[in-house]
Amino acid sequence: MAFDAIETPFGESGRIVGGSATYLAWSASNFVKPVNQISVIGEDFPESELSALAGRGVHLEGVQRKMGQKSFFWAGRYHMDMNTRDTLDTQLNVLADFNPVVPDSYQGSEFLMLGNLMPSLQLSVIRQLKQRPRLIVMDTMNFWMDIAMDDLLVTLREVDVLMVNDSEARQLSGEFSLVKAAKAIRKMGPRFLVIKKGEHGALLFHEDQVFFAPALPLEDVFDPTGAGDTFAGGFIGHLAATRDISFDNMKSAIIKGSALASFCVEKFGTSRMKEISAADIDQRIQQFVDLVNFEITLAG
Amino acid sequence: MAFDAIETPFGESGRIVGGSATYLAWSASNFVKPVNQISVIGEDFPESELSALAGRGVHLEGVQRKMGQKSFFWAGRYHMDMNTRDTLDTQLNVLADFNPVVPDSYQGSEFLMLGNLMPSLQLSVIRQLKQRPRLIVMDTMNFWMDIAMDDLLVTLREVDVLMVNDSEARQLSGEFSLVKAAKAIRKMGPRFLVIKKGEHGALLFHEDQVFFAPALPLEDVFDPTGAGDTFAGGFIGHLAATRDISFDNMKSAIIKGSALASFCVEKFGTSRMKEISAADIDQRIQQFVDLVNFEITLAG
Repeated sequence: MAFDAIETPFGESGRIVGGSATYLAWSASNFVKPVNQISVIGEDFPESELSALAGRGVHLEGVQRKMGQKSFFWAGRYHMDMNTRDTLDTQLNVLADFNPVVPDSYQGSEFLMLGNLMPSLQLSVIRQLKQRPRLIVMDTMNFWMDIAMDDLLVTLREVDVLMVNDSEARQLSGEFSLVKAAKAIRKMGPRFLVIKKGEHGALLFHEDQVFFAPALPLEDVFDPTGAGDTFAGGFIGHLAATRDISFDNMKSAIIKGSALASFCVEKFGTSRMKEISAADIDQRIQQFVDLVNFEITLAG
Repeated sequence: MAFDAIETPFGESGRIVGGSATYLAWSASNFVKPVNQISVIGEDFPESELSALAGRGVHLEGVQRKMGQKSFFWAGRYHMDMNTRDTLDTQLNVLADFNPVVPDSYQGSEFLMLGNLMPSLQLSVIRQLKQRPRLIVMDTMNFWMDIAMDDLLVTLREVDVLMVNDSEARQLSGEFSLVKAAKAIRKMGPRFLVIKKGEHGALLFHEDQVFFAPALPLEDVFDPTGAGDTFAGGFIGHLAATRDISFDNMKSAIIKGSALASFCVEKFGTSRMKEISAADIDQRIQQFVDLVNFEITLAG
């Protein structure tokens, strides 16, 4: 939970609320309550944002507020293709010595989503849970592959689902073919692998099965920040709500995550996530069905 | 119909038979006979290749053989990502003064596929047909946008379906968003637009409808040469066989084209296209169904 300042070809956001856990909570809380949040914020993080999350059934006991300190801050500029960006500023602030603590009230959580963070901290959360969750989903990024690969490999052995983008899947596996990359990564621990390809959709790999979900073709992507976290929040939110971790239900989870991500990119930050209703989400999911649905007659 | 010499990270083909019209004919003839071929070849083009095509129901009366001249030749090297390539050599040879002539026996053809070529020559074929085909599909490339945009725009007004890749759609329309690009291009003439995204699949746009078909995730892409032509051949071959040019049937045509393209890239040139059976194609199509098929329950 943090602050971002985002520049895109369409405008500048100024300093706004962001952070993986913020997007995850806004997204997952469309489907499941409570969401037991673990994060760290500074004195500067607005109380109104916390109240808004609490109002959606997000428990905040695991969110540490460090008085006299500042929240994590990231500033970045997106290029025209909206797939690449330059980091203009990173201020770790409260994240520099973050030590996540799982409150007693969170014990027994059945679904654990590890937002993108130092792998050793992700592992610490897993280790603090007395009963292993039914499903552990982990997000990570190339940065940790560069500077903390050993910790990342240890953490990977503990998770069920890994989510990375295509270039991260290639970096982690050393394979260019995503099919080969998926095989290699599943040997590192996760039984399921989600490869996010941004505007090109997402792939789900499990044993010898593969599922592909497109991204909705949009007139404009206004701000891609948080789209991956929103996708992940919708994914685990749907699984937690249905309590069904089959491959078939993960397909639905990916479509729901994609639908939520398609809203997220329509405005800066979490603005669009704060507006949408269940009916909006249903309508968007129907667009996904229409987008990929076809009837075909085989010759044989 | 031409010769290629292809280098990929996996090997070198040497001089092999290629060319848009070759791939189109191999592909379309899986679904429909006859295919009335129009092209130009030199004295060096192997008779055995012509016999093989004739054996599949490809009529060759419209293929001009220029004795004492050489067939078109292209040499290229693919980069590791297999999406980008360098041209090492281009020898126009018989293409330099090609003037396509539609034989009388081809008059009345209901489905016309214009492979990638100078737009003025594509237009010439349209103009030679006394009765307008039910469906005209056109492939083109960025090269013609650079050097023959005026001719391209004139030809575009005469066609029903345009096929281009994503960067060509952006160049032609001046729009970065593919949704906006599709709107702009449909105003130039084609009622249908297929945007090919290589390993990221293909989009079909028509009025306010959009359909997305993924590419099959493959362990290895051995040689992408001809994949777009093979896709186009399967697309128009299916439409011609079913004589149904509805949006819904174009979805099936795209899946069938994608299935054929997924075979094409498995070996150099047309080798793989020469091996596959109807059962192989059915099996591949079933993989596409499995890849994108999902059941979802809406909340509302």
